[in-house]
Amino acid sequence: MIKQRFFKLIEFYIFDDKYSNKIVIESIKWNKEGLIPVITQQYDSGEVLMLAWINKNILLDTKLGYYVSYWSRSRCKKWQKGEKSGKIQLLKEIYLDCDGDTLLFKVNQYGPSCHSGCLSCFYNKLLTNAKIVKNSIISPKFLYN
Amino acid sequence: MIKQRFFKLIEFYIFDDKYSNKIVIESIKWNKEGLIPVITQQYDSGEVLMLAWINKNILLDTKLGYYVSYWSRSRCKKWQKGEKSGKIQLLKEIYLDCDGDTLLFKVNQYGPSCHSGCLSCFYNKLLTNAKIVKNSIISPKFLYN
Repeated sequence: MIKQRFFKLIEFYIFDDKYSNKIVIESIKWNKEGLIPVITQQYDSGEVLMLAWINKNILLDTKLGYYVSYWSRSRCKKWQKGEKSGKIQLLKEIYLDCDGDTLLFKVNQYGPSCHSGCLSCFYNKLLTNAKIVKNSIISPKFLYN
Repeated sequence: MIKQRFFKLIEFYIFDDKYSNKIVIESIKWNKEGLIPVITQQYDSGEVLMLAWINKNILLDTKLGYYVSYWSRSRCKKWQKGEKSGKIQLLKEIYLDCDGDTLLFKVNQYGPSCHSGCLSCFYNKLLTNAKIVKNSIISPKFLYN
């Protein structure tokens, strides 16, 4: 209830209101696994790169200008983006949505963000028939040595 | 296992491969509630507007050029975006990510996408201190009559 009130309150705030990051992070509505989704977007082109998940501890360690880390749901551990492939993301901006359950990271992505070698993970375009619209930078064969 | 193989397979496809939407939708990895997240992005500006959820039936009814609907987790029912506020989204493009568990809808948003009256739901900017960076189009007081 307290969390709901916080986000209701800020709906009626106007421009340039400030409050501490601590209050915001305490108000986030983590799911049953203690996670929320993070949309990752290339900061200058606006391309949506991927969707990942994060928990409170990783978010508290997240710093503007540094490498981005997420929570790997498949491996059940913290995962620094690019730790194996070298294709890191440097964090430019962080946004939280209106009801406190989704983050948007604007990043500078080095090389492909996708394990497939594409810049973006969203390369399956659904039309009347689906079509792969890959913009491959590198073959996945060469991404992990 | 079949789902995993499908997405593994397409990693190594090259340009302009086509397959039926039905195969793709059957391969989607729905969560325990039968949902996956949808990132909604303004098709021309690239602004990320919101994150919502969708199920298989709603996705099967989703058509390019028409209104967008989602699954409301709070109200447990299908929810046509803008059904109350009139601030609808017309669907331009649909993308599925590399492992089949997140969608990206590129839309044309009429008016604000956010119930707060902002174009985007992502108006809480986390800096050293958090700051609300609203780009209000309309006050929420006037959005729902």
